[in-house]
Amino acid sequence: MCYPPVAMGTRKPRGKSAGIRVNRTLPEPVYLQIADQIRNNIQNNELEDGHRLPTMRELAALLRVNRNTVRAAYAELERIGLVQSDVGRGTFVRRRRVSALGWKPGAAAGDGTFRWERLVSRRSAGRGDVIERLSIGDGVARIELTGAVADRSLFPVDGFREALEEVVREMGPAILDYGSREGYLPLRQWLAGRLSAHGTPVSENDLFILNGAQPGLDLVGKLLIEEGDAVAVESPTYHNALGAFRVYGADPVGVPMDGEGIVPGALEEAFARRPFKLLYCMPTFQNPTGVSMSRARREAVLALARTHGVAVLEDTFDADLRYRGKEEAPLRSLTGGRDVLLLGTFSKILFPGLRLGWLVAPPALHGAIGRLRRSADLAAGLLAQAAVHRFCEKGLLDRHLEYVRGVNARRLRVLVESMRRHFPEEVHWTEPEGGMSLWVTLPRSIDAVDVLLEARRLGVNFAPGPLFHADGGGANALRLSFTLEQEERIAEGVEILGGILKAKIAEPRGVPNDAPSVFL
Amino acid sequence: MCYPPVAMGTRKPRGKSAGIRVNRTLPEPVYLQIADQIRNNIQNNELEDGHRLPTMRELAALLRVNRNTVRAAYAELERIGLVQSDVGRGTFVRRRRVSALGWKPGAAAGDGTFRWERLVSRRSAGRGDVIERLSIGDGVARIELTGAVADRSLFPVDGFREALEEVVREMGPAILDYGSREGYLPLRQWLAGRLSAHGTPVSENDLFILNGAQPGLDLVGKLLIEEGDAVAVESPTYHNALGAFRVYGADPVGVPMDGEGIVPGALEEAFARRPFKLLYCMPTFQNPTGVSMSRARREAVLALARTHGVAVLEDTFDADLRYRGKEEAPLRSLTGGRDVLLLGTFSKILFPGLRLGWLVAPPALHGAIGRLRRSADLAAGLLAQAAVHRFCEKGLLDRHLEYVRGVNARRLRVLVESMRRHFPEEVHWTEPEGGMSLWVTLPRSIDAVDVLLEARRLGVNFAPGPLFHADGGGANALRLSFTLEQEERIAEGVEILGGILKAKIAEPRGVPNDAPSVFL
Repeated sequence: MCYPPVAMGTRKPRGKSAGIRVNRTLPEPVYLQIADQIRNNIQNNELEDGHRLPTMRELAALLRVNRNTVRAAYAELERIGLVQSDVGRGTFVRRRRVSALGWKPGAAAGDGTFRWERLVSRRSAGRGDVIERLSIGDGVARIELTGAVADRSLFPVDGFREALEEVVREMGPAILDYGSREGYLPLRQWLAGRLSAHGTPVSENDLFILNGAQPGLDLVGKLLIEEGDAVAVESPTYHNALGAFRVYGADPVGVPMDGEGIVPGALEEAFARRPFKLLYCMPTFQNPTGVSMSRARREAVLALARTHGVAVLEDTFDADLRYRGKEEAPLRSLTGGRDVLLLGTFSKILFPGLRLGWLVAPPALHGAIGRLRRSADLAAGLLAQAAVHRFCEKGLLDRHLEYVRGVNARRLRVLVESMRRHFPEEVHWTEPEGGMSLWVTLPRSIDAVDVLLEARRLGVNFAPGPLFHADGGGANALRLSFTLEQEERIAEGVEILGGILKAKIAEPRGVPNDAPSVFL
Repeated sequence: MCYPPVAMGTRKPRGKSAGIRVNRTLPEPVYLQIADQIRNNIQNNELEDGHRLPTMRELAALLRVNRNTVRAAYAELERIGLVQSDVGRGTFVRRRRVSALGWKPGAAAGDGTFRWERLVSRRSAGRGDVIERLSIGDGVARIELTGAVADRSLFPVDGFREALEEVVREMGPAILDYGSREGYLPLRQWLAGRLSAHGTPVSENDLFILNGAQPGLDLVGKLLIEEGDAVAVESPTYHNALGAFRVYGADPVGVPMDGEGIVPGALEEAFARRPFKLLYCMPTFQNPTGVSMSRARREAVLALARTHGVAVLEDTFDADLRYRGKEEAPLRSLTGGRDVLLLGTFSKILFPGLRLGWLVAPPALHGAIGRLRRSADLAAGLLAQAAVHRFCEKGLLDRHLEYVRGVNARRLRVLVESMRRHFPEEVHWTEPEGGMSLWVTLPRSIDAVDVLLEARRLGVNFAPGPLFHADGGGANALRLSFTLEQEERIAEGVEILGGILKAKIAEPRGVPNDAPSVFL
């Protein structure tokens, strides 16, 4: 059962977001759920210094939890330096402010505990956003429509085991030693050849092998972004890219998309308003929408970036997973695209656990990339690189891709057919030509997080829209991935979601919920 | 042949550092050597805007290089936005200033090239320091006394191959899928057990497996450091730690060491002068000196950090490599050490190419670490973790360690005996009880970089002192590693170095060198 927000305290309710909910179906302990929400309210300045929190007894009664649960929540808030308890008087908001220059020595408290909260950087602070509140990705559901990740039951384990054994036998100790900072040369050569064969001429000297694509996002953030720099992203976009750029002080600005991707007029308007440092985009099978940019759209977006002197990072994470339609050239291969940073990964098409990705970067950046890698991770794992190279060189990647494309195409078809059958007509979705997920838009009155909480109770998991938005939004949208589950389970999951959506749409609006509601 | 600095231009020589040298024995192309040194002079404000560089013909004659080489150097400087050529008038310093807020749109130049130098962050800029000038670590010498890295010919490849095959066979596809953010649980349990057995009680819940130790330095930098934060480091210290902290804006402050490690009085003085965020240290077999802190010293350093509320990052990268003396407890295991961040790696004792390290962190930081990893690299490679775990669990790590300790102890003995035999009496060195390298101090008049240039010509490589200093210094010191070469080659290398040192000491001082010298 999901308890909607619960009202309490001296301030007037400002809206759902300021409320406290307890949800016993989440993996996060209840006391932490409470503490986290109060923390958010303090950090959002909903609660000012000196404000008295309800007594433990009061809050326990309102939230229908044990008093010890509230005690633990308040203790946690005290530990992280947000409240202070005065015996007999109550618990008060006493925010110890942490800022870039304002931290003070004295993190060793009198009681022997170390006050880390005084020392951690602002970039490490939680944003209290949906991914944290819901622990998305951490749960295990009966039907998993969340992750844009490959189905491990399809992994070509035997072929890979042979490749692995061969390279260990042939290369001996060298394969376990440090590799070069740029990556294993034969793998770079193979990748350069493959990219060139697909119409994107690339030299192996411009290729860096990374420990996955995520380190590529981190690297580009480190390389380009300074505090306050504007970064244009598709809206919605990949949430962990937002995280990677924000670590370096980026101000991500979402640019609206339509069925052909980024809307050029909107991008132009954004670029005209202020200087932008970077445009991050996924032109093919975009995450989370599955939308691909047309050739004309690609050219327009690239031209705008060139005109305004904005660097472009093109993420091709799942571009190999095309099930219909014709291949579109990456921005990198278009006229004027020579300086586009091109990011790719083996995690979506082979084995995510090997952590292998790659970045194509122009020579002007090689020196800086080498320096940054020296301090970040030295090099990618050599054994994994050599084994994947051997696997690919034997033609096993293409064989595997053909197989996976067939499986995924059927799963996508089942997903779309099931939605047609079970979703109310007010619900809309994208129909991608490839990739791993699609984007569902609900009527405005329906909150995807509410739907998710209900769906999890029934064993179905997905990623709600707010996760993918730089600046709020997406409340009535969600991403469904179709690569993890078999066809009949996808159909079953969609049927369950359809039931929830129909009930939500039928719900009378504006009627107060009977669950208790606390606003701080 | 090494050409010492060469005089030219309108300014008076200010000292060796402002000069330009060309060294054909270095792997770096000559034109880049010239460009890099002029770049340094511009960036150090030795050369101001508007200053006219010598004509290509003049500089080529002075440096005894081809005119096209100078042309390429100037073109490189123009490309990175430091000089501008006006046909018929010459080449002028025209620095395009790049600052946090000062970058402007318009990186797309009229000629179609993309001006990356306007977009890269300050943290990516080269420091023009010794590691860059000399490409340390990139060359291949006949006798390699540079890297504090393991000798691959000792790698226990057969045992590892078996462990690898076992886990792939037993775990199947799961081993190639994403692992958890914290790392492979059995490996964390094994590590926690091992640390606890060695007197440092650690829970597997406090352990994070990383893609090497370097990502741990990067992670701690990200976690704690904000622009301008003071970080205390041993002087000398590990150069890539300096790099990792500087990326996040750290101001590293070197604290003097003696034969027992950090001098507490000096640390106290530093802590009293200004607030410090972090102390980074390697209490056992410190890199580069090989020095270990005594128990009393460890307690004093920890107490100072606690008193001043400074976080401690303890790097135990090679603490398992003890050849004599008794094991010293890590700071983490001492009273009050519970909040010490403890960093370790498998790269020094097993296989660096697997890229596996680990970090012990207190619960207060787990949330932030999880968040930062989500945007940095998601997780460490699962296959590598599972294979190493199997290898360790079978007792093969301890067997291998025993073997390597024997080999390394003999190599260290040979190194020290050879130095006694061949080094002039004015030269001093540390005699570590373990680890991978030791520290040599030359008479003040001798420059270790000069010795290195000479040694490389004779096929011997080592790491010069300036590499390991946060704030200059180390000019007359160097690190010799003894883990990469066999005994007779170590002896041969030391004999060569001894010859160079004797000649340098015998050199009459203050006599001008006959090689041409250019000062800009």
